[in-house]
Amino acid sequence: MADDVASRILAELATILPPAAVLTEPDATAPYRQDRAFDPDAGVPLAVVTPTTTAQVQQIVRLAAAHRIPVVPRGAGTGLSGGASAVDGGIVLCTTRMRDLRIDPATRTVTVQPGLLNAELKAAVAAEGLWYPPDPASFEICSIGGNIATNAGGLCCVKYGVTTDYVLGVEVVLADGRALRLGGPLIKDVAGLSLVKLFVGSEGTLGVITEVTLRLLPAPSPTRIVAAWFHTIDDAAAAIAEISTAIRPSMLEYMDATCIRAVSAQTGADGTPLHPDLDTSAAALVLGGTDDLDPNGRDVRFMEGSFTRHGAYAVTETDRATGEALAAARRGAIPAVEAQGRLLLSDVGVPLPRLADLLDGVARIAADHDVTIAMLAHAGDGNTHPLVLSSWDDAELAERAETAYGEVMSLAVSLGGTITGEHGVGRMKRPWLRDQIGDDVLEVSQRIKDALDPAGILNPGTIFAAT
Amino acid sequence: MADDVASRILAELATILPPAAVLTEPDATAPYRQDRAFDPDAGVPLAVVTPTTTAQVQQIVRLAAAHRIPVVPRGAGTGLSGGASAVDGGIVLCTTRMRDLRIDPATRTVTVQPGLLNAELKAAVAAEGLWYPPDPASFEICSIGGNIATNAGGLCCVKYGVTTDYVLGVEVVLADGRALRLGGPLIKDVAGLSLVKLFVGSEGTLGVITEVTLRLLPAPSPTRIVAAWFHTIDDAAAAIAEISTAIRPSMLEYMDATCIRAVSAQTGADGTPLHPDLDTSAAALVLGGTDDLDPNGRDVRFMEGSFTRHGAYAVTETDRATGEALAAARRGAIPAVEAQGRLLLSDVGVPLPRLADLLDGVARIAADHDVTIAMLAHAGDGNTHPLVLSSWDDAELAERAETAYGEVMSLAVSLGGTITGEHGVGRMKRPWLRDQIGDDVLEVSQRIKDALDPAGILNPGTIFAAT
Repeated sequence: MADDVASRILAELATILPPAAVLTEPDATAPYRQDRAFDPDAGVPLAVVTPTTTAQVQQIVRLAAAHRIPVVPRGAGTGLSGGASAVDGGIVLCTTRMRDLRIDPATRTVTVQPGLLNAELKAAVAAEGLWYPPDPASFEICSIGGNIATNAGGLCCVKYGVTTDYVLGVEVVLADGRALRLGGPLIKDVAGLSLVKLFVGSEGTLGVITEVTLRLLPAPSPTRIVAAWFHTIDDAAAAIAEISTAIRPSMLEYMDATCIRAVSAQTGADGTPLHPDLDTSAAALVLGGTDDLDPNGRDVRFMEGSFTRHGAYAVTETDRATGEALAAARRGAIPAVEAQGRLLLSDVGVPLPRLADLLDGVARIAADHDVTIAMLAHAGDGNTHPLVLSSWDDAELAERAETAYGEVMSLAVSLGGTITGEHGVGRMKRPWLRDQIGDDVLEVSQRIKDALDPAGILNPGTIFAAT
Repeated sequence: MADDVASRILAELATILPPAAVLTEPDATAPYRQDRAFDPDAGVPLAVVTPTTTAQVQQIVRLAAAHRIPVVPRGAGTGLSGGASAVDGGIVLCTTRMRDLRIDPATRTVTVQPGLLNAELKAAVAAEGLWYPPDPASFEICSIGGNIATNAGGLCCVKYGVTTDYVLGVEVVLADGRALRLGGPLIKDVAGLSLVKLFVGSEGTLGVITEVTLRLLPAPSPTRIVAAWFHTIDDAAAAIAEISTAIRPSMLEYMDATCIRAVSAQTGADGTPLHPDLDTSAAALVLGGTDDLDPNGRDVRFMEGSFTRHGAYAVTETDRATGEALAAARRGAIPAVEAQGRLLLSDVGVPLPRLADLLDGVARIAADHDVTIAMLAHAGDGNTHPLVLSSWDDAELAERAETAYGEVMSLAVSLGGTITGEHGVGRMKRPWLRDQIGDDVLEVSQRIKDALDPAGILNPGTIFAAT
């Protein structure tokens, strides 16, 4: 970009936003170049902006449209697929200061700006006796806008569904700067095309979400958690498959030995282990939860029986504190493994009967390429996170890890599965998208992208190739 | 259309389908000109076809595309918005013979062709101990394809969500004859745009659904039903609002006096009343259901308390047979009122706190125009069915009814609601769509329509103006 054009754009940004809301110095913008996927190909943006209002977002997008420069929407930067990698010469539109929240108990909805964190939303509605179910493991640090953009999942989704199931309405700024209001606090509304659902999961490629209305539920019942420890991953997979066909657990999570050991190695500031309850000799830990109100504890009994029948060497219904500690250990697995070095984060899913094939296949891929792949999973919905250990300085290992990362996705596709269950395609998984959805679906998707963003300024390179 | 073109199209249809699958005689095609909205402007089709395979659907659509003639997809013809009105010179593509079904207990999904009836699907999966929740009141006569096309709701949706929440995958034939496979038996899959959800509710304007994969649940728990009889509609609305904010009923239905009397007047072949349990002196009947497993019956107690506090003159937890009889009476209300004459079927919804305003406003509109508007509602999700009694032969009454029908939609929009909660826009509600969603949303929707069906051959006049 010519310097004078850049200067003009920055001058115009200065008329839209206060000085503190426009970062341009390399040191200041550097933290906004990548999300948690640490995309090595992330670009250097012209500016990082932090608007607070929809009107400001509209002005920013209009400015970008006028100059045909990219706009990369960014939430809390916790994405795991490179969906918020900066693009050279573009604008990173960061929603972190868009944090308004209005709870409406009468419609049991909450309307929020996208920058609020999932945990903040959960806490605010809980104070009114209400519940927002979707719970990505990163819920304490990820934003609602990012959750909408990726149609994020989480632990409770096996029973309570994913983000899109809770999105009743959105306000979205299109590539031409218009703001659309879609849906609202209505449980049922079929007037016209389902545009709300189209924008959910579109990873910032069709518009910038500036406000969202979410359906809430009454406060959940207490969860009872059964922990089962296995000597083999196949036994664990078989129990998971049986439980998934028979009951509706509110959580059914899986961690392999690598994850258990990584979490187990974590210590607090005083050097004591954070998770002393973990058995590091296990091949797998499965956590089954239920929140039904059955006084006979049918689900708990069924899970205990299934785990035992399938060879678990220890099965216990945990007390509340232990159960929550184990769930926290599960949620902390990605950062714990990440502490060991560079990760390539997979997010592949398969139909449940193929879960064992996926676990075995991933182990084979790890052996083939002499890499470590830690495995954890929202097992009850067939969504897994194989974490491929790569390296920042060993190029040869990094190449083997990259190969394994690709093979894991190809394996999932060959098993009738998906390359991404809840993290999004971003830039990191785009090379494998065609293998899964095929030429025709990709072409139809591109037609919709072109209809809404003909110049391709919105998050170029994510899902769709940059034009 | 020139006769020779018509002859050529019919000759080509004869190469695709057996003779019995192509109807062309006016007497034979007449029953397929309208759905249950009895659109007076329905056209006269060139042919009604009943394919059995996706390949046949593709050939039919390619033929129509080549000649630029309209294709109107049609399920069981139970639509209430004119979404399946025939178009002059077009093809009515009727899915009634596409009835294959495959249940997969291991993934807890069912894959079906669109012509199967909702009740047939429910029965087939129930035989495997499984449950497909969405339950339009017409579930015994409506097809799954139609349910997908309209994103149909029903009675249990207040707790269990609407059709789109259960659609994991579709096969859809596009306007150019290509068949796309989208999604599959995966609970979580965010690879690419959410095209599955875009096709659900698109009323046959973006493609013809030829197969669908639906998520199932384990068999439901028994439902406990509380019946409450009210002297005023405002009291009933107040109880509904309170219950909806506090608990998660699995059903919360409303019938007004006109509906109660219409259902009560129905008799069996032997002349005895079909529904002797109804109190025809009531202003409103509310049915609250719960299927939770709480041994203390907290939800039942709460509903009883709320109904009583809000002035119900009779509140009883029904025994199972009575409860099911009352639910059946509710489901039978539209046909019962329809037996009194021509109906204009509304399907407006509002945010729950505005339900009383809607009920009062509809009563006012009825009085203003001296028409009868029977009211029934899936009250727990704010979705109502004001049934405007019109006439087939009294033109002056028909005009007043038409005016009232429009005013009901305008009222809903003015209350922040929708012109259609679950029936679809079809042709009958299109004149009011713009008032609800606005020029920008309509324009963006049209861009998507044009991207997928540039010649506008798919169901022209439904949602979008025919071009």
